[in-house]
Amino acid sequence: MNTFGKIFRLTSFGESHGKGIGGIIDGCPAGLELNIDLIQNDLSRRKPGQSKITTQRKESDQVEFLSGVFEGKTQGTPIAFAIWNKDQHSNDYNDLKNVYRPSHADYTYTKKYGTRDHRGGGRSSARETIARVVAGAIAKQILASQGISVQAFVSQVGEIQLNKPYTELDLSKTEDNIVRCPDAETAAKMITRIEAAAKDRDTVGGVITGVATGVPAGWGEPVFNKLHADLGFAMLGINAVKGFEYGSGFEGTKLSGSQHNDVFINTSEGIRTKTNNSGGIQGGISNGEDIYFRVAFKPIATLLKEQHTVDRENKEIIINPKGRHDPCVLPRAVPIVEAMAALVLVDHFLLSKLNTI
Amino acid sequence: MNTFGKIFRLTSFGESHGKGIGGIIDGCPAGLELNIDLIQNDLSRRKPGQSKITTQRKESDQVEFLSGVFEGKTQGTPIAFAIWNKDQHSNDYNDLKNVYRPSHADYTYTKKYGTRDHRGGGRSSARETIARVVAGAIAKQILASQGISVQAFVSQVGEIQLNKPYTELDLSKTEDNIVRCPDAETAAKMITRIEAAAKDRDTVGGVITGVATGVPAGWGEPVFNKLHADLGFAMLGINAVKGFEYGSGFEGTKLSGSQHNDVFINTSEGIRTKTNNSGGIQGGISNGEDIYFRVAFKPIATLLKEQHTVDRENKEIIINPKGRHDPCVLPRAVPIVEAMAALVLVDHFLLSKLNTI
Amino acid sequence: MNTFGKIFRLTSFGESHGKGIGGIIDGCPAGLELNIDLIQNDLSRRKPGQSKITTQRKESDQVEFLSGVFEGKTQGTPIAFAIWNKDQHSNDYNDLKNVYRPSHADYTYTKKYGTRDHRGGGRSSARETIARVVAGAIAKQILASQGISVQAFVSQVGEIQLNKPYTELDLSKTEDNIVRCPDAETAAKMITRIEAAAKDRDTVGGVITGVATGVPAGWGEPVFNKLHADLGFAMLGINAVKGFEYGSGFEGTKLSGSQHNDVFINTSEGIRTKTNNSGGIQGGISNGEDIYFRVAFKPIATLLKEQHTVDRENKEIIINPKGRHDPCVLPRAVPIVEAMAALVLVDHFLLSKLNTI
Amino acid sequence: MNTFGKIFRLTSFGESHGKGIGGIIDGCPAGLELNIDLIQNDLSRRKPGQSKITTQRKESDQVEFLSGVFEGKTQGTPIAFAIWNKDQHSNDYNDLKNVYRPSHADYTYTKKYGTRDHRGGGRSSARETIARVVAGAIAKQILASQGISVQAFVSQVGEIQLNKPYTELDLSKTEDNIVRCPDAETAAKMITRIEAAAKDRDTVGGVITGVATGVPAGWGEPVFNKLHADLGFAMLGINAVKGFEYGSGFEGTKLSGSQHNDVFINTSEGIRTKTNNSGGIQGGISNGEDIYFRVAFKPIATLLKEQHTVDRENKEIIINPKGRHDPCVLPRAVPIVEAMAALVLVDHFLLSKLNTI
Repeated sequence: MNTFGKIFRLTSFGESHGKGIGGIIDGCPAGLELNIDLIQNDLSRRKPGQSKITTQRKESDQVEFLSGVFEGKTQGTPIAFAIWNKDQHSNDYNDLKNVYRPSHADYTYTKKYGTRDHRGGGRSSARETIARVVAGAIAKQILASQGISVQAFVSQVGEIQLNKPYTELDLSKTEDNIVRCPDAETAAKMITRIEAAAKDRDTVGGVITGVATGVPAGWGEPVFNKLHADLGFAMLGINAVKGFEYGSGFEGTKLSGSQHNDVFINTSEGIRTKTNNSGGIQGGISNGEDIYFRVAFKPIATLLKEQHTVDRENKEIIINPKGRHDPCVLPRAVPIVEAMAALVLVDHFLLSKLNTI
Repeated sequence: MNTFGKIFRLTSFGESHGKGIGGIIDGCPAGLELNIDLIQNDLSRRKPGQSKITTQRKESDQVEFLSGVFEGKTQGTPIAFAIWNKDQHSNDYNDLKNVYRPSHADYTYTKKYGTRDHRGGGRSSARETIARVVAGAIAKQILASQGISVQAFVSQVGEIQLNKPYTELDLSKTEDNIVRCPDAETAAKMITRIEAAAKDRDTVGGVITGVATGVPAGWGEPVFNKLHADLGFAMLGINAVKGFEYGSGFEGTKLSGSQHNDVFINTSEGIRTKTNNSGGIQGGISNGEDIYFRVAFKPIATLLKEQHTVDRENKEIIINPKGRHDPCVLPRAVPIVEAMAALVLVDHFLLSKLNTI
Repeated sequence: MNTFGKIFRLTSFGESHGKGIGGIIDGCPAGLELNIDLIQNDLSRRKPGQSKITTQRKESDQVEFLSGVFEGKTQGTPIAFAIWNKDQHSNDYNDLKNVYRPSHADYTYTKKYGTRDHRGGGRSSARETIARVVAGAIAKQILASQGISVQAFVSQVGEIQLNKPYTELDLSKTEDNIVRCPDAETAAKMITRIEAAAKDRDTVGGVITGVATGVPAGWGEPVFNKLHADLGFAMLGINAVKGFEYGSGFEGTKLSGSQHNDVFINTSEGIRTKTNNSGGIQGGISNGEDIYFRVAFKPIATLLKEQHTVDRENKEIIINPKGRHDPCVLPRAVPIVEAMAALVLVDHFLLSKLNTI
Repeated sequence: MNTFGKIFRLTSFGESHGKGIGGIIDGCPAGLELNIDLIQNDLSRRKPGQSKITTQRKESDQVEFLSGVFEGKTQGTPIAFAIWNKDQHSNDYNDLKNVYRPSHADYTYTKKYGTRDHRGGGRSSARETIARVVAGAIAKQILASQGISVQAFVSQVGEIQLNKPYTELDLSKTEDNIVRCPDAETAAKMITRIEAAAKDRDTVGGVITGVATGVPAGWGEPVFNKLHADLGFAMLGINAVKGFEYGSGFEGTKLSGSQHNDVFINTSEGIRTKTNNSGGIQGGISNGEDIYFRVAFKPIATLLKEQHTVDRENKEIIINPKGRHDPCVLPRAVPIVEAMAALVLVDHFLLSKLNTI
């Protein structure tokens, strides 16, 4: 159950404080000229220590390819890769060996497996998402060859919301600030909000919006693997995610059908819709309009303040974690959201080759 | 891509106006004494014509089992079943043969497959969910043998919201009214709201809440197949669904970590959490608390009023559909939400047998 | 585990004496004009009662399509179908309810599932292969559109062997006799051999050879899903099969490499090999030469004579089965071998669309 | 398509002359105390340079575990591992860059992918089987905990056959000689035969027999994934394999049913069969008797003598390969056969947990 995708399949491995994190991509078409810089760039967008509002842990997160790439090109064979762990303070975690941290996976892993690697959360650490960023960055390159872009940005931090539809934003400005919100004014407020949380040794949640442009009509599977169901599955598999909506989402439930329906029109570029409450997907299949969606992230569970909890002997105790942690996961999660969306889209691109003889 | 589940697998078939809807369940354990009445009961909760606020089409929706059940018991072999279509007014749809109805799957199917069965939406019709209700009703019986119940109810219709947490409701009252909201007062308002939509020849959306009780700690897969990711995938695969959230959901993103974390406590029944913002799932694995989630349904696209659209020749036209349609999908979708949740849970029940030797 | 194939997937259902046998084909491309006569023709080649050397049970074995085909064409949606059981003498089997017939699946099913449908072997009956013949006949039509033919014939019955390579035979004569051996002289001996077995109330085994022509170079997966591994898996999944070999097979193990290697030559039609010990597959991937293989069938286990065995209470007993049974499975298994080969090849045809962007 | 298994899944990666060979095992139960020596021992049985009748290449083939094992125990999380390549003479292969070696995968890879890593066969090299030996050695440890042993031995080299049933052999003597044949006399002849091939700069094929003891009745899936179909699939996926048979195999096709049937008897240890033509499997499911099978290996294609072939420009040329190669793959393939059998059996062990509630 550590494999994602049906045709373009990522199997990930690794723990936070083991030898490294990595994966095998099986089903990547042959002949793709890999741009390693683009991969490394997405890793850098995810890496810790990148700004004053993220954890100050320093990790270089350099990817090493172990197979499947020869003379710079994919071979159609499995692409294995690893990001080796370095400079891990495993001993920071000795105190927590027998403790179930609140809202972490310590307790549930123990109930499931009867054992767990407690160092830094082990397999449950968000460090695992490195593997997804690598695979997603390759998926993005395939999508780019089809004229498709996948972009995400932070649209909410705590109660600070970006109150504009994505169509009124210039997404090329997302990387202009450390919180990855394309609206400078809102970004400033978000940064202040995150700094306040950090100062309070607390954390704060938020929302990331994702947008895919250039997806042609006809991608997706109509029943269980609706394009948005696969997107939602992908997003809900990211650490700390609590919700997913696309197009009009939860707000759209309050509309009547006559307000909500997207009227088809004939344009010089073919059939389009006048509005896009459908979020680019109708009946589970893309209709050629932009695909957009929102992903809810809870405030992360690791606080640098006293908390009540219990240990493996069911004894109630108080913990007071130390270490270097993120006050807000959102800025670093932007490339993860993009990666997972790209993995879904590349899978449906490949699946779409099978529609007809 | 018409198969759902990893161990307990439903493959569904059928179109709205073909011979019938059905499926094959593969991976159902042997020796289960099937209660056909419970299956038929869930079908009746889904069937059209059940009340004044649903479509007035009459369909009996009797399930026939074709294999896999012998002397009343499952045999471990594939359970095939069908619900035969009857009394379909296929000719109602002749006018729509070459039309792309707004916010329906007509256009996207045509782009994907180059062909489509236009009668009543063909495969894209929500009538397909009958197969899920049958399989889900079997899944529920397995779960019941483990002390687990899965219940859903309507918590919002248009702007009418049920503003109580599910813990303050008596879910045994859900079936007491035709809208399937356990709070009588809110139910009355919802019914009025749906009747207003119907009178206006329009439709209205809403939200269904699902609750699973009795799930033991330790079910779920920690990375891609997090228990909530599988639940979200299942819900987003239901026709008209636009969003999914569990536990604190989108609202929880506004909290700080110290407010959101669920403190573990030691109780006479073992380890529990004081609050349940986690929605019963931590790190993708159940923690023994109730699992709860919310599912957003858009207003359904079929309106009985004039709408602009285009046809297969890209010509702009006006349609004015006739027929018997639902003004609101929510009341009939309650058993579908339950069914999909049960399919996910039974899959993870079976997967949990594989955790250790 | 009742699904065959990765892209073009058949899930089969049904028991010998239940309501019927059928299946769902998922992943069949849209737009294929189905020739039902060809499907029915393969069913007739498989059906009982077709000649004096098969069982005299009469079954019409008419296929009914339940979904996925509209106006004669596949829709890309699941193709469900059934062959309804008729005129079954279920009571013939009452005596065998508690008996473990030698070399049948009665004992092993009971150990696996704790229960079994004893009527005519239930799910373990070779009647299940009807579903494969239907799906295979559709696969053949797709392959034919690519210039590929799949043919099988009986090359051994008991000790009677057809001692010519397939290249010296006229395979169009396979259907000229009731045993389905393209060499008239050998066919006559085989028929005599089967009649002798029948007279003796015994059974006899044999070998079927399969040949696929027109497969282009480049189909197959190089590691686990080698084209011949998928073919072998397919054949070994047919009832009564005990062995599989392709190309030079077991005999080739006695050669030295310099005798066995297939030298490449340049011809007017491109690169070919001088010999074909490889059986058209090198490194698991087709090389453009004919693919050929042999499948070993044991003598079927149902004898119309006294046999010692035990019952469910471990009591040793003597059984003396009655009924209408085949003295030799080979003639009726020819279309099954073809069907399974076609399913494998169509799957790799579709997979080959994913090799490159 | 580089994943093997349904529950206990190995995904392998790597090329002959890339950074290394490895894999990810997903689905290994938690809590297994790994015996690394046993894994390394099987690698040593497979490694080159182990005796005078194998290639003289020296490779240490030390496995490194990258994840999934903590404090010596499996964690239920993915077990990634690698065997790093060393001392590879990549330049040996420059001459062969544009050449299609006879009966190798050079031509077919190029046709499939449009590109290939030509160094030492790249992904098509039998060096890939290292990953299988590692995973198989773990599978063996799980099986051993259930009282099951999996053993293989060389039963034929060229025309030299071991003419005794395995039941008359002492399999503990298999490792007593370098050819891995438990009969000393036959082993000596086989060694002479291989030395003759080597002297002639040629190669020779043969047969490996596999035996699994202790498998309880009730493992296997009755239709497509018959236990022997999965075994055959596994064996046919090994490089150079041309055939598979189990139990009475091809020879059994000459028997009549009354000779072939295995009569059930009641013994002090429960129900057994008098003979074992079934090879321990009936209707695709184990019956508690020994499982045995035979695997045909062709003479390997790399000869150290002149051969005609063509190059990428379709030009006919003569090649005369140099290097250090095996004259016979059989002795080193014994642990590979065992590994693949163990992978199949452990998968069915885990699947058997799902038969009933």
